Amino acid sequence: MLIGLVQFAPRIGEVTSNAEAMLEVAANAADRGAAMVVFPELSLVGYPPMDLLRDDIVREKCKLALESMASRLRIPALVGAPCWEDGTVYNAVYWICDNQWTAAGRKVLLPNYDVFDESRYFQAGVECSILRFGGMKILLSICEDLWAHDADLKYPMDPIQKALDAFGQDVQFILNMAASPYSIQGVSRRAHVLKTTAHRWDLPVLYVNQVGARADLIFDGGTSVTLPGKDVRGVCPNFVPACALWDTDLNQCADTIIWTNNTLVSTFTLNTDRQDPWKGEVVLGHRFNPGEITEALCLGIRDYLVMTGGKKVVIGLSGGVDSAVVLCLAVMALGAENITALLMPSGYSSGRSVEDSMELCRMHGVAYQILSIEESFRAVIGTLNAQWDEQSAALTEENIQPRLRALFLMAYSNQYGAMWLNSSNKSEAAVGYSTLYGDMGGGLSVIGDLYKTQVYALAAYWNSLKNWIPVSILLAAPSAELRPGQLDSDSLPPYPLLDALLMDCIEGGQDEGGLIRSGHDPELVRRVLGMLKRSEFKRYQMPPVLRVSSRSFGRGWRRSLV
Amino acid sequence: MLIGLVQFAPRIGEVTSNAEAMLEVAANAADRGAAMVVFPELSLVGYPPMDLLRDDIVREKCKLALESMASRLRIPALVGAPCWEDGTVYNAVYWICDNQWTAAGRKVLLPNYDVFDESRYFQAGVECSILRFGGMKILLSICEDLWAHDADLKYPMDPIQKALDAFGQDVQFILNMAASPYSIQGVSRRAHVLKTTAHRWDLPVLYVNQVGARADLIFDGGTSVTLPGKDVRGVCPNFVPACALWDTDLNQCADTIIWTNNTLVSTFTLNTDRQDPWKGEVVLGHRFNPGEITEALCLGIRDYLVMTGGKKVVIGLSGGVDSAVVLCLAVMALGAENITALLMPSGYSSGRSVEDSMELCRMHGVAYQILSIEESFRAVIGTLNAQWDEQSAALTEENIQPRLRALFLMAYSNQYGAMWLNSSNKSEAAVGYSTLYGDMGGGLSVIGDLYKTQVYALAAYWNSLKNWIPVSILLAAPSAELRPGQLDSDSLPPYPLLDALLMDCIEGGQDEGGLIRSGHDPELVRRVLGMLKRSEFKRYQMPPVLRVSSRSFGRGWRRSLV
Repeated sequence: MLIGLVQFAPRIGEVTSNAEAMLEVAANAADRGAAMVVFPELSLVGYPPMDLLRDDIVREKCKLALESMASRLRIPALVGAPCWEDGTVYNAVYWICDNQWTAAGRKVLLPNYDVFDESRYFQAGVECSILRFGGMKILLSICEDLWAHDADLKYPMDPIQKALDAFGQDVQFILNMAASPYSIQGVSRRAHVLKTTAHRWDLPVLYVNQVGARADLIFDGGTSVTLPGKDVRGVCPNFVPACALWDTDLNQCADTIIWTNNTLVSTFTLNTDRQDPWKGEVVLGHRFNPGEITEALCLGIRDYLVMTGGKKVVIGLSGGVDSAVVLCLAVMALGAENITALLMPSGYSSGRSVEDSMELCRMHGVAYQILSIEESFRAVIGTLNAQWDEQSAALTEENIQPRLRALFLMAYSNQYGAMWLNSSNKSEAAVGYSTLYGDMGGGLSVIGDLYKTQVYALAAYWNSLKNWIPVSILLAAPSAELRPGQLDSDSLPPYPLLDALLMDCIEGGQDEGGLIRSGHDPELVRRVLGMLKRSEFKRYQMPPVLRVSSRSFGRGWRRSLV
Repeated sequence: MLIGLVQFAPRIGEVTSNAEAMLEVAANAADRGAAMVVFPELSLVGYPPMDLLRDDIVREKCKLALESMASRLRIPALVGAPCWEDGTVYNAVYWICDNQWTAAGRKVLLPNYDVFDESRYFQAGVECSILRFGGMKILLSICEDLWAHDADLKYPMDPIQKALDAFGQDVQFILNMAASPYSIQGVSRRAHVLKTTAHRWDLPVLYVNQVGARADLIFDGGTSVTLPGKDVRGVCPNFVPACALWDTDLNQCADTIIWTNNTLVSTFTLNTDRQDPWKGEVVLGHRFNPGEITEALCLGIRDYLVMTGGKKVVIGLSGGVDSAVVLCLAVMALGAENITALLMPSGYSSGRSVEDSMELCRMHGVAYQILSIEESFRAVIGTLNAQWDEQSAALTEENIQPRLRALFLMAYSNQYGAMWLNSSNKSEAAVGYSTLYGDMGGGLSVIGDLYKTQVYALAAYWNSLKNWIPVSILLAAPSAELRPGQLDSDSLPPYPLLDALLMDCIEGGQDEGGLIRSGHDPELVRRVLGMLKRSEFKRYQMPPVLRVSSRSFGRGWRRSLV
């Protein structure tokens, strides 16, 4: 039997059009011989639906959509959708077959950590359920239901075991419908769970995940089949909507359909001159796959633009590596014709930074404007100093510069309908080495979940394939150029030290004692933790950050402001 | 027997100093004859502790603090604190007595709506527990445990009933230890729950709540005793740390201690010339108590300053009612000497708005500076127009003005170490009638949870007692003054219509169909819901908003950006 495993890209809250898209995919799969199709977790409403689940209109739309699907589907389908029942809501999977639709499974393990808040919205199911179809018994599980044995999560029971104990005779395979976002650390953890699950129950695991980006969250897909004792076998390319037709008799993929004309598809290609030299190097103690991160961030940019109805972006180029990397990502995601770069020198900007920025734009065919902030800066300072009985302080003047640049970027954004892409990195955001309403602004933070060291690694990787970024940008010592001769290293520890410490603290969850035991310098630990705590108020007003780590700033990071 | 009911103001994460403060209060109560003291929910770590609960160092500090309290307390105490047990955490109450400390109760009903995320952090207890002390049986409950019968919350069981069924013979009273934040709508709901609980079980309910503000959340206190069949009797003044000594034999309050020298105490007094004329009028369909709201917001401002280590604030005065109200609140909370007002006229500002703002400052003895944005505006426009091949559009120029004002306010903030208090109201924030990095900026949004209609009502109330705000500010038609003759009514529906609709939608949770059924104009409903949805990205980057409603923007409002 052929089963269509659909790596689907729903839009949040767009219930009716999500249902239409699923019907189209199902028809396509039916044409190619599929006996049934499987869509990921919460495909009908998108993930995460958040407070939408409390709107009566959403409930009504879901009901109508399921009815419509039931009457129009040519083959049966499993569809992830909320199930409102007895005054509560389940994160459920519907079995749509023979003009009927029924909630066939309810998610048992609800994640409530990092970016997940499922207990806020959902009631937990009791155990995984079994679907009988075409002479087969299929165990239905939803995302976190696979993670019962994770040492960190400490779940009290295994809903798969419970279902197998109760009805488990002759189950053919375990199906997992997921909405599992991408992270650098998550890819290998997910593979490990799929492999151990297949091994533990001696059953194939069919895994169907969402794809596409929704604001901060990027879904990579990773739809796969894992046979007991074998490695995870990806059956759809990552980062694009696709459908794999899996043959349950032959245990192999019969066909894969990719929707390249879908507007959500990332067309990222590096157009490399040279062979990919990357051998799975480790950066900051973690496997670092720059090609994968590039694709994830490109998808994040593109989908955010598509879903907010925009096409064009504007980027402020400083001559540093961060804004250069953001520009390259935008070029890959949107094409040079949709980008304008603003070069906004002051009296403190070096000739190098302006020339390198122009060179970068020329290399990629990106239009740029040079808008000096000098005249505006002098006007602002003039007005202030005429009123103040003391000279404006160095810090005051330093902060005025990025704020004027933000003002220019937003003026461009208002004038030409372009979204300003933020260029801050995670190291700066963590220690507050950044200006609120200045370089911390923008519609979307593209690399706000990459430490400076990782930003350099990404740039170095691209340059190893093709000349993407002028070498002098990579070689220049990091500087905010807000006063003569200023260097980041005047105010911050060296980035490799800082980033390793931050990674252990933020992603690793280590506190002061833990960081010192891990070998970080005690004085540096206290200094950095102090900076991290004191800059919470700046991060509170940050734009959404494309999440590529297991702990990004934004909704997954919840620290008190006081 | 005398029980000290302590309306306590812990600081989030300051475990050691919270314990010291509790020891001092307990000693004071003991001196006055108390046999035991009761502190509110999570008094040891503050509320909400959020991700702090995952730090090993916090767990360790809690253990040490409880040990220290056990060895030093002269009378027994009930203290709200997290209980780490078997790899999970409970929201617990510790009984500290005879040098011992034990988790005597665990919160059963965990709220997961609005600003609450307790299932994210806590494991639920099974039932309320009974404490035996001094020949009495006391039923211990924690905050939400009282709310089992609330129709909206739909809890499946009543943990108080469960405990009374199991061990309920001869219980003397129900104790509830809470961390329940203030809201305009919440005061009467809380009173209703206390009254029905006392009536249902025919037992007195002793209620002990936190006080003080923690960033967005304001705790009013409201510590009370409710006897069966009687009204709720407040035993501590609201908005200040206090301890009531309740006599369980006589069923009356023997004494109330108020800590006026505590830096967290609000010293708000309106210094009224006339008698309070307010008779519990209704604004936007809800009971509106302007004196209470004034106290809540003053406490919110003051505690945020205290807890972030600041003293001084800066406020931009536009000549409109919003910034005038924020200035008055700051005067009441901090004293005029800690405030600077910036008047930042442009060519579009009316003479009236500047003169009224100066008059307002003179009335309150607040220092002000006039910093015209005109020269800076011309410099910015000059730079832009020299590069752009089209004239800058009206919208571009309109937005540059509030952004220059934000730049001046932040320059003042950097120069003089003053926090910029934001003056946006909830109506503007809801429909996006505001400029990101302009009037939406600031360290704290003071009236961002009050609709424009409520802001007027607050101002009218103050003016009915004393001349607080120049009448011409209240009479002027609302205008952003960003182009000649501009009025809010050019872009927005009349505020009474708009605010009533927003209130039904945001606080009332009504969707499109519900709003139309409630009698709102269908066209207006669709227009306003569209504006609400499209401005989500602006609110994402708002400062923390002092919460005074049952649904404020910020952590309790979770809508997708896409």
